[in-house]
Amino acid sequence: MTRKPLDLAQALIRCPSVTPAEGGALSLLADVLGEAGFEVHRPVFREEGTPDVENLYARWGTGSPCLVFAGHTDVVPPGDASTWRHDPFSGAIEGGELFGRGAVDMKGGVACMVAAALAFTAANPEAPGSIAFLITGDEEGPAVNGTVKLLEWARARGERFDHCVLGEPTNPEALGDMIKIGRRGSLTGRLVVHGRQGHVAYPHLAENPIPGMVRLLAALGAEPLDAGTEHFDASNLEVTTVDAGNPATNVVPAEVRATFNIRFNDTWTPETLEAEIRRRLDAAAGNTVRYTLRVEPTNAVAFLTAPGPFVERFAMAVEAETGRRPALSTTGGTSDARFIKDHCPVLEFGLVGQTMHAVDERVAVADLDRLAAIYRRFLDGYFGAAA
Amino acid sequence: MTRKPLDLAQALIRCPSVTPAEGGALSLLADVLGEAGFEVHRPVFREEGTPDVENLYARWGTGSPCLVFAGHTDVVPPGDASTWRHDPFSGAIEGGELFGRGAVDMKGGVACMVAAALAFTAANPEAPGSIAFLITGDEEGPAVNGTVKLLEWARARGERFDHCVLGEPTNPEALGDMIKIGRRGSLTGRLVVHGRQGHVAYPHLAENPIPGMVRLLAALGAEPLDAGTEHFDASNLEVTTVDAGNPATNVVPAEVRATFNIRFNDTWTPETLEAEIRRRLDAAAGNTVRYTLRVEPTNAVAFLTAPGPFVERFAMAVEAETGRRPALSTTGGTSDARFIKDHCPVLEFGLVGQTMHAVDERVAVADLDRLAAIYRRFLDGYFGAAA
Ligand SMILES: [Zn+2]
Ligand SMILES: [Zn+2]
Repeated sequence: MTRKPLDLAQALIRCPSVTPAEGGALSLLADVLGEAGFEVHRPVFREEGTPDVENLYARWGTGSPCLVFAGHTDVVPPGDASTWRHDPFSGAIEGGELFGRGAVDMKGGVACMVAAALAFTAANPEAPGSIAFLITGDEEGPAVNGTVKLLEWARARGERFDHCVLGEPTNPEALGDMIKIGRRGSLTGRLVVHGRQGHVAYPHLAENPIPGMVRLLAALGAEPLDAGTEHFDASNLEVTTVDAGNPATNVVPAEVRATFNIRFNDTWTPETLEAEIRRRLDAAAGNTVRYTLRVEPTNAVAFLTAPGPFVERFAMAVEAETGRRPALSTTGGTSDARFIKDHCPVLEFGLVGQTMHAVDERVAVADLDRLAAIYRRFLDGYFGAAA
Repeated sequence: MTRKPLDLAQALIRCPSVTPAEGGALSLLADVLGEAGFEVHRPVFREEGTPDVENLYARWGTGSPCLVFAGHTDVVPPGDASTWRHDPFSGAIEGGELFGRGAVDMKGGVACMVAAALAFTAANPEAPGSIAFLITGDEEGPAVNGTVKLLEWARARGERFDHCVLGEPTNPEALGDMIKIGRRGSLTGRLVVHGRQGHVAYPHLAENPIPGMVRLLAALGAEPLDAGTEHFDASNLEVTTVDAGNPATNVVPAEVRATFNIRFNDTWTPETLEAEIRRRLDAAAGNTVRYTLRVEPTNAVAFLTAPGPFVERFAMAVEAETGRRPALSTTGGTSDARFIKDHCPVLEFGLVGQTMHAVDERVAVADLDRLAAIYRRFLDGYFGAAA
């Protein structure tokens, strides 16, 4: 049987699945996919210090190639519900738009994927290859008991994936704007400059760490990290905070701390980037500035799904349904694609992101139909070509 | 009648006069000075938002010249009394040292002044001129209801002063080290650099204020403010804190704040100094850094009591009693001398400051006797010369 994307999206929005609550959303998908012939699993992952999280894995068929749809049903909190035009979990429709937390990020996208897969499998019951769903309930939270573990779990079961489409809202303005074919990495560093506390009236007995920090921060930002690449913007460093926390105007503080975050392209690994940062800091510090740098471990490395038949087929489906040639972009924040890319090539395409995480999150009903049509058209091509 | 400085110091220490408490200290002085023929006043000053504070003014004689001894009987809190070798208000004597909060800052100094004045007036009942005491109970606190108001009060009464000796602990190592003949001024500035908050992954939508702050702080410290003068060190600027207070490593903060304090010599007034700071900031900010600067109103201007007969007579008394030629210094923090200097020339000389404000504050009993002898020798010369 088939489903309308609007009905699925509305039903999902009505499940109060603020991370880490399942809220009925995965059960709904399990029922729908199970009815349509998918084999459904509901692994729960646990780790001390984080909440248990439910996830869903479903597969239709056992053959190759296997196309994976990935996504999440958890949502960020709605904030003060009274500031919304409609209750954030009501799934109200007004003026051709479906309202609710998750409408675009990404219950709407999940609904379109499921609708497209159901339509395809209903129309092509004997199609070769297989379609899988990797749906987590821990994308907006710590992301510890979600996609990473779900991918490991599937690999341990012997599941092999050929390509993945992740349904995050990738379009800045209108459906058809943008496919994401990679993501920059993210690296966070914690910098401390050490001095010696003392009274401002006796500066020779103290050692003010702030001028040293000023020198180090100036050095971090003095030169661009790189000039960007064909598919990536230049890597960018932002100092996100600097704090001495000293309330006494007559006291020189003992130390000052700063944090910076770098969004880096695929000319760097976390290791080469840390080395470059240390080189800059050491050169600026000389023998006079005493500092320590701790770079936080990161699983957000830069990656690129190089344009080729997979990306091109998806772009053609977008163009056919929207009349617009999508940009192939690597901009924006990180996503679960950074985990998936270790298992198979991944691209991201979903709804228009403008209202995500905001009050009155909503999606045009017409966009739901068009996105489902894009996914469906892509599946036709993907499996037609593979047949 | 005369008094031993040790007895007076010990009796004062036993008065628990942590600011703003009078603790019996001023009453004790009023009794002692009254008995010796001083006319004693006990003005209490009030101001909304600050505690009422008791003060003492006493004068012996009505003629000219009038030499003023200035000081305070309030003390800073002792902290955890159990960490002291002797109870901080016991006035215990051990190994030739008198222990207690205020031993050097400055109940000990007040005791020596009073002992010297009593000895002088007893020996010279017909001496011309007069001796006054300006003793406040609000030096270690907000300093609102203390010396400033006491001086205004005295001026309103028609009291005129010719010279003042302030008994703060001025000696870094040993009695005889240092007379303070001036003080640097103190100016505090609050700097804010304004930006626009945003996500680090979309830096073009945000405006990070931290690089601008780095530029401004670098400009503030790039050049010395001056080279110092014959009697003053170079003016010195310390950035005491810088804070964005942003806990989110993926967010560019909206603004960052910094505070700086300048200890400045008499080549500057607060006004000329603020103008120079703004000149430096404007040059560094150009059209790209949006900042606001608020300079806190200050009553701590730089001043100098130029070396001359008054200072030289005091220095000779120090040298005669200690065998050491005291340095004439303008170093260190601010003191109530910055208020007194508007009424008459002022110098500062007292005990050895090493243990002031610390656990086990203490003074050598021998130093009390020698400081009283210095003050007495100075009085003899001062009034002998004036006779
Ligand atoms: Zn999402
Ligand atoms: Zn003092």
